[in-house]
Amino acid sequence: MASAPQRSPLAPEAFPDLPVIDGVSFASAEAGVRYTGRTDVMLAKLAPGSTIAGVFTQSSTRSAAVLDCEEKIKFTSDAGAAIIVNSGNANAFTGQDGRKSVKAVTNAVAQAVDIPETRVFSASTGVIGEKLPHDKIEAKLKELSGNLSANGIEGAAEAIMTTDTFAKGSGTTATVEGQKVRIAGIAKGSGMIAPDMATMLVYIFTDALVDKPVLQSMVAALNQTTFNCISVDSDTSTSDTLLVAATGASGIRVTENNLGFMEGLRRVMLDLAHQVVRDGEGATKFVSIAVTGASSDRDARTHAMSIANSPLVKTAIAGEDPNWGRIVMAIGKSGAPADRDMIAISFGPIQVAKDGWVNPGYKEKDAAAYMKNDVIDISVDLGLGGGRAVVWTCDLTHGYITINADYRS
Amino acid sequence: MASAPQRSPLAPEAFPDLPVIDGVSFASAEAGVRYTGRTDVMLAKLAPGSTIAGVFTQSSTRSAAVLDCEEKIKFTSDAGAAIIVNSGNANAFTGQDGRKSVKAVTNAVAQAVDIPETRVFSASTGVIGEKLPHDKIEAKLKELSGNLSANGIEGAAEAIMTTDTFAKGSGTTATVEGQKVRIAGIAKGSGMIAPDMATMLVYIFTDALVDKPVLQSMVAALNQTTFNCISVDSDTSTSDTLLVAATGASGIRVTENNLGFMEGLRRVMLDLAHQVVRDGEGATKFVSIAVTGASSDRDARTHAMSIANSPLVKTAIAGEDPNWGRIVMAIGKSGAPADRDMIAISFGPIQVAKDGWVNPGYKEKDAAAYMKNDVIDISVDLGLGGGRAVVWTCDLTHGYITINADYRS
Repeated sequence: MASAPQRSPLAPEAFPDLPVIDGVSFASAEAGVRYTGRTDVMLAKLAPGSTIAGVFTQSSTRSAAVLDCEEKIKFTSDAGAAIIVNSGNANAFTGQDGRKSVKAVTNAVAQAVDIPETRVFSASTGVIGEKLPHDKIEAKLKELSGNLSANGIEGAAEAIMTTDTFAKGSGTTATVEGQKVRIAGIAKGSGMIAPDMATMLVYIFTDALVDKPVLQSMVAALNQTTFNCISVDSDTSTSDTLLVAATGASGIRVTENNLGFMEGLRRVMLDLAHQVVRDGEGATKFVSIAVTGASSDRDARTHAMSIANSPLVKTAIAGEDPNWGRIVMAIGKSGAPADRDMIAISFGPIQVAKDGWVNPGYKEKDAAAYMKNDVIDISVDLGLGGGRAVVWTCDLTHGYITINADYRS
Repeated sequence: MASAPQRSPLAPEAFPDLPVIDGVSFASAEAGVRYTGRTDVMLAKLAPGSTIAGVFTQSSTRSAAVLDCEEKIKFTSDAGAAIIVNSGNANAFTGQDGRKSVKAVTNAVAQAVDIPETRVFSASTGVIGEKLPHDKIEAKLKELSGNLSANGIEGAAEAIMTTDTFAKGSGTTATVEGQKVRIAGIAKGSGMIAPDMATMLVYIFTDALVDKPVLQSMVAALNQTTFNCISVDSDTSTSDTLLVAATGASGIRVTENNLGFMEGLRRVMLDLAHQVVRDGEGATKFVSIAVTGASSDRDARTHAMSIANSPLVKTAIAGEDPNWGRIVMAIGKSGAPADRDMIAISFGPIQVAKDGWVNPGYKEKDAAAYMKNDVIDISVDLGLGGGRAVVWTCDLTHGYITINADYRS
């Protein structure tokens, strides 16, 4: 195992102070699944009446835990719930034994915290293709259930890290009909050590009272403009999981399309999504790509993701090179409509190209100076219609190659 | 301008001896478009009666020369033809002036070699977004037309290089109804210096007598399993061009579906496609990815390209790591159907995974030893149906980052 990587240069200064969410408690422990000298399992317990919404990876090779969560999330229940997550072993591509491990862990958690097994959601992240030593997790459940605390969220964020260089948390208060509700969440991603793969796990909690169908439709909608708009390297994990749980402990009801609550939830989701990009492997630049003037929002997103995933664009940004030709190339290959002679491109405030050619007033030295920033905004206007999208990515550096090619497990 | 890069470790030993194709002659010259001390323009002249087929980049931001060729290739003519190609400047994303430059060059060539301008095909490769100094090319046309020679093909291959580390040529003879016809071709790709982009240009010549519709359908079909099955970094140039010209000088007629001729043409196309991958930026491994057992050939290609374009797979290969988990990930994210528990994966002769888990007899040290080869074969069987595809790629190394991030134009 390689030594712990340096904290990302794009990391926030410290883990934020998060609001305490009534109705949820956390514990973490050292189970020794793979790592030593650090926590690697976290348990969250949700009070009776909590509702849970979720979205999961669309991978056709998704893990046993994801398949189990997808099944369980369909149902509603007042019986409370639990979430158990381990790092160090992803229990992915482990054949029939993978399902058995999920069953064993969720069953043991159900007994330890007195919650029906159908309400125990699990996730695993780490090395794949190796059998999960689930007995090591089971052996820690008594300790975990004894240590559950409303203040344990930072410890939970730390326990689910793999090669993340910092623990990720975000929280806010939202105003619902003049009253405050609290939202707090944690995430992990997107570090890896061969033969692991980048996995994004996100758990968000609120004390608002939200019916499950309302919560599910909000989470699904907000996911489209937050976690579904980030890309580190275009590769997709077999274990990506986002769960949002509403304990209802505040007694404040959130109904469909409540803008105050949705804005609060959106902020937490977007902040966590950005933190995942800021911890992208080898990342030295945080890049936002805004596309306007597309024929539709969907086309705008297709163009923006084509730019975000282009190795040539990402290496140019790493090299602090205002290489707008590569952006033209990425637009051209995206498959969505574009008219070469209508495209305008800006780096931050500097318009580098318009009407299909370099802007006559453009001075490369200005753009080259702008590219030295560690936050880079690229905007593209296609001049075709009203479609727009924003996505976020990072640069592609020698650090990425070193992390993914030079280490051997 | 950076110094000339070292010859790729995957390059063939030398430029091959190519058969001379009756009815086509070549010349090259130093026009000084951008480079100094090397040739940068090539002219090919085709005898009256030659037919020409072509396929081009699908980019929506394709260059003025590509748009011009697409228009001209629709028509047939007995008036002969010419091909003019410069390196150093791609004449791409140059607004309305791009079209004017194409017109100026093709018109000047038409006059210099006495061929109708509608039969002059052009291409440009190199820096983009800068006006093509087409007068420098025009000033060399007298010299070029005076030097046309049946033996000039290697010089032509050299003149169209940008950051290619070796000139690419391939030739063969094919048997048509017991008689020999000759096929010879050249290619460039896929080197680049910022702010250039990888461009693939391919020109193939034969002395067979082939009607244009027959030639076009053969080239389009063969392109699907040759040039359309390679990827260096998933980025697509705005200038990719493949032209195949049949001079008919042998008098030997090739009719629809002639297997002898198609096999000869396929070999030349595949050899040139492989050479482009072998000159991939920073490449140290030549990788073939064969997918069988897919629901359709199309699905097999989708899976194979997802594996070929995955940065995590490509960095693992660079690190000589038999990281089959990343292949499972790339299959899962491709969007085509797969059943996790049916997948089998082999590296060369070593089966590493089957039935959704690691092969019980697998020893990682065997696979790790295999990964030290510079030609790597990955095979995946999905166990679903009869669909199959093979694609070719290279690894993703520090060399790629250095070429694309560290240089400034």
